[in-house]
Amino acid sequence: MTTSRDHRVDLLAGWEHRAEWPLAIMATIFLAAYSFQILGHPDSVWPAVLRVVLLVSWAAFAVDYVVRLAIAPQRLRWFVRHLFDLAVVVLPMLRPLRLVSLVVLVGALQKAIGGAIRGKVIVYTAASSVLLIYVASLAVYDAERGHAGATITSFGDAVWWSFVTVTTVGYGDFAPVSITGRIVAVLLMIGGISLIGVITATIASWIVQRVAEEDDAERAATAAEIRELRDEIRSLRDDLGIRANTGRQ
Amino acid sequence: MTTSRDHRVDLLAGWEHRAEWPLAIMATIFLAAYSFQILGHPDSVWPAVLRVVLLVSWAAFAVDYVVRLAIAPQRLRWFVRHLFDLAVVVLPMLRPLRLVSLVVLVGALQKAIGGAIRGKVIVYTAASSVLLIYVASLAVYDAERGHAGATITSFGDAVWWSFVTVTTVGYGDFAPVSITGRIVAVLLMIGGISLIGVITATIASWIVQRVAEEDDAERAATAAEIRELRDEIRSLRDDLGIRANTGRQ
Amino acid sequence: MTTSRDHRVDLLAGWEHRAEWPLAIMATIFLAAYSFQILGHPDSVWPAVLRVVLLVSWAAFAVDYVVRLAIAPQRLRWFVRHLFDLAVVVLPMLRPLRLVSLVVLVGALQKAIGGAIRGKVIVYTAASSVLLIYVASLAVYDAERGHAGATITSFGDAVWWSFVTVTTVGYGDFAPVSITGRIVAVLLMIGGISLIGVITATIASWIVQRVAEEDDAERAATAAEIRELRDEIRSLRDDLGIRANTGRQ
Amino acid sequence: MTTSRDHRVDLLAGWEHRAEWPLAIMATIFLAAYSFQILGHPDSVWPAVLRVVLLVSWAAFAVDYVVRLAIAPQRLRWFVRHLFDLAVVVLPMLRPLRLVSLVVLVGALQKAIGGAIRGKVIVYTAASSVLLIYVASLAVYDAERGHAGATITSFGDAVWWSFVTVTTVGYGDFAPVSITGRIVAVLLMIGGISLIGVITATIASWIVQRVAEEDDAERAATAAEIRELRDEIRSLRDDLGIRANTGRQ
Repeated sequence: MTTSRDHRVDLLAGWEHRAEWPLAIMATIFLAAYSFQILGHPDSVWPAVLRVVLLVSWAAFAVDYVVRLAIAPQRLRWFVRHLFDLAVVVLPMLRPLRLVSLVVLVGALQKAIGGAIRGKVIVYTAASSVLLIYVASLAVYDAERGHAGATITSFGDAVWWSFVTVTTVGYGDFAPVSITGRIVAVLLMIGGISLIGVITATIASWIVQRVAEEDDAERAATAAEIRELRDEIRSLRDDLGIRANTGRQ
Repeated sequence: MTTSRDHRVDLLAGWEHRAEWPLAIMATIFLAAYSFQILGHPDSVWPAVLRVVLLVSWAAFAVDYVVRLAIAPQRLRWFVRHLFDLAVVVLPMLRPLRLVSLVVLVGALQKAIGGAIRGKVIVYTAASSVLLIYVASLAVYDAERGHAGATITSFGDAVWWSFVTVTTVGYGDFAPVSITGRIVAVLLMIGGISLIGVITATIASWIVQRVAEEDDAERAATAAEIRELRDEIRSLRDDLGIRANTGRQ
Repeated sequence: MTTSRDHRVDLLAGWEHRAEWPLAIMATIFLAAYSFQILGHPDSVWPAVLRVVLLVSWAAFAVDYVVRLAIAPQRLRWFVRHLFDLAVVVLPMLRPLRLVSLVVLVGALQKAIGGAIRGKVIVYTAASSVLLIYVASLAVYDAERGHAGATITSFGDAVWWSFVTVTTVGYGDFAPVSITGRIVAVLLMIGGISLIGVITATIASWIVQRVAEEDDAERAATAAEIRELRDEIRSLRDDLGIRANTGRQ
Repeated sequence: MTTSRDHRVDLLAGWEHRAEWPLAIMATIFLAAYSFQILGHPDSVWPAVLRVVLLVSWAAFAVDYVVRLAIAPQRLRWFVRHLFDLAVVVLPMLRPLRLVSLVVLVGALQKAIGGAIRGKVIVYTAASSVLLIYVASLAVYDAERGHAGATITSFGDAVWWSFVTVTTVGYGDFAPVSITGRIVAVLLMIGGISLIGVITATIASWIVQRVAEEDDAERAATAAEIRELRDEIRSLRDDLGIRANTGRQ
């Protein structure tokens, strides 16, 4: 049983590795088509083409979800932990939310770049924020423009509203009135709080490290120093003419 | 005296253990009845039934409070630290606040699930947030709907307002005007700030750990490494032919 | 010179110790008189009495400032670090700000209670927040009520506005329009940001500690464990029959 | 190649060291001229003089950018990491953003003052905040005052709006309507989030340290204590009559 489970863990990891770049490319195409559909001229001759492109890219994500669910070693646990993925794939009315899966692309780029944890976190946060604001602006603009009593009536206003929301400033000069627009807003707010959390945490980790470096008497002992100490003891043992774990003097 | 105090500590812990699930079930019934009372048809034939259910569940919490106060080893200290519990039980006008005790349910579920601290914190935070937003929406809708000049006049608007408030965005498109509504709002804001705090703190703890794992020379020495070092010294002593604490060579 | 400077450090500490309670009592009287002056009936027969009380309590703070400046060992440095104290004492138009010195009272209470750092931080934060909101409400109400175009026209609205501001929610249903009101608002916002910072930091410190306790292999080595290790080495030395620092075998 | 690269690193560091004060002075002159241009009487006879001063100080920053890019050892990496500097120098329409380089002055002052990390962070944060708010107020006032439908029509309102924005309160009583004004607003919001992050992180670092100091059994072992332990082992070795790394007994 354990071998069978290990096999499945390997299978899942393999699939996720192979599917990463195709899905990232698919998501980019999806974003482009979605942007064009919303921001392009309404009397464009392309609507049929766009609809096909959106359908194909959607299908790619649906297939990915089904395959991963089928492979997953602990299917129920995987299902519970990926409820958001399901919502994004299944509900046709929540089309904009599907775009959130685009952060896959950021993750892929991140791996290509490499670097220290704190640098990675900064790049990832910046990229996610830009993507989140762009997608949220598209989605809220799409949801609001046809709605009675809407204040967000141009894409520029939607971008401005996204910035005001994600930073939790919330002037209230623009606010969504449609259900879809408000769902997008709530996701954007949650993104904003996480964004603030990540920024604060990164700064905190940096300050804690600098304070530690400054004062040696306050600095926590490092693993390297402990290793040095062990070497000291081992050399003492050596000097006493004892060979470790083999015999007694 | 110490034995008597220890006995009381045991008693209190025992009561809290035994009362946990009954109270959680009571709180769920209370929430259901409260929801039905506010969101159900006003010309419902159930009002009398609901009133009895609410009274019974309220009584359960009152009994729990009195029993815990009677058992508590340091009664005055317990009283000061549980002032909020008292306010929730005693004041009839603050009925909605009583529902905050529903987080007991989350705590109980949490224990049933188990898992690592950071995972627990995430589940607890998510569950508390959903519950807080739902209860606050009910309470503010109940407080505002009959009030002159109120802007929050539907349950949907109340939910939207709760999200805007708890994330500290605060557009101002909806804002409570009644005293009760504003008290609910203040509690929601405090909940929101704590929510942001918990999210930031969890991310910070994660980043600090990842930064530490990345660089061995920067990582704090762990208790496990110290134990390893002690074993090294003990084995040195062994090799020298000394039996610990018993005699000299 | 060092002795003279040490003497002055002792003098300053002594003065601050002796002046603590008198100043706390003075500040309480000041707050009571200030509250009465703003919230009491305008046709009260007490205005003259109140004015005298306010003047006397103000004088107490002025004397305290001058004495501390005179005693301080590094007068220039003390002056730079206590610029806020100066502003509060000197500028008659900033009367409400003087009340911020009331947190002295919280500090005094804190010392009387004692307890662990994290508990202290919580009590101090809660007390400061309540005081800050009350004083800011009084000050903004006083500044706004006579002003043309003001929206904050009752003390209840001022309290509500203070909560909305200090939590950085900022609905915008009420906002100060006078210069004094806006200065109070800015101080309240700074207080609010600090409040969020303290809450987040306290939670973060708690989570980091719990994560550490959970996993012994991840937990940082403690000073106690290092001490244990030293005892181990010393006992080894003892067993080898060596007397520390006195001679060789 | 390594020597050539080392040489360039030295060159860059040397340039930055020598250019620091001239640039700081230039930035101060720039800020003064910019302030005068916006807040001075429109019918002033000085416009030509101001324009020349602004041009010269702008040229200084452009020269600094070009020189640094030419010297930089890894030119592409330097270019990517200093994209913001480029935007500030190149785009004539983003003139206000150029003023952000004024934080150079704070950095220079900081070095002159010296002190502990946490103190430095506080001074730097306070100075940056004041500068950011002042510059943002100037820029938004300049962008909005001529715009149709603008609410920010006096410098006082602009300062008030800056405080409301940077603290993420966002009442919405004032909000920019022009593109430039909104870009300034977004930068101010990002500054505000960073500000909150720095304050929280500083408080967190302080609380973590105080909690550690309070409980010796919980406190992380310090590097100093490890050093003490090593001395103990070395003295043991000494007492055993072994000379380190030279021979055996």
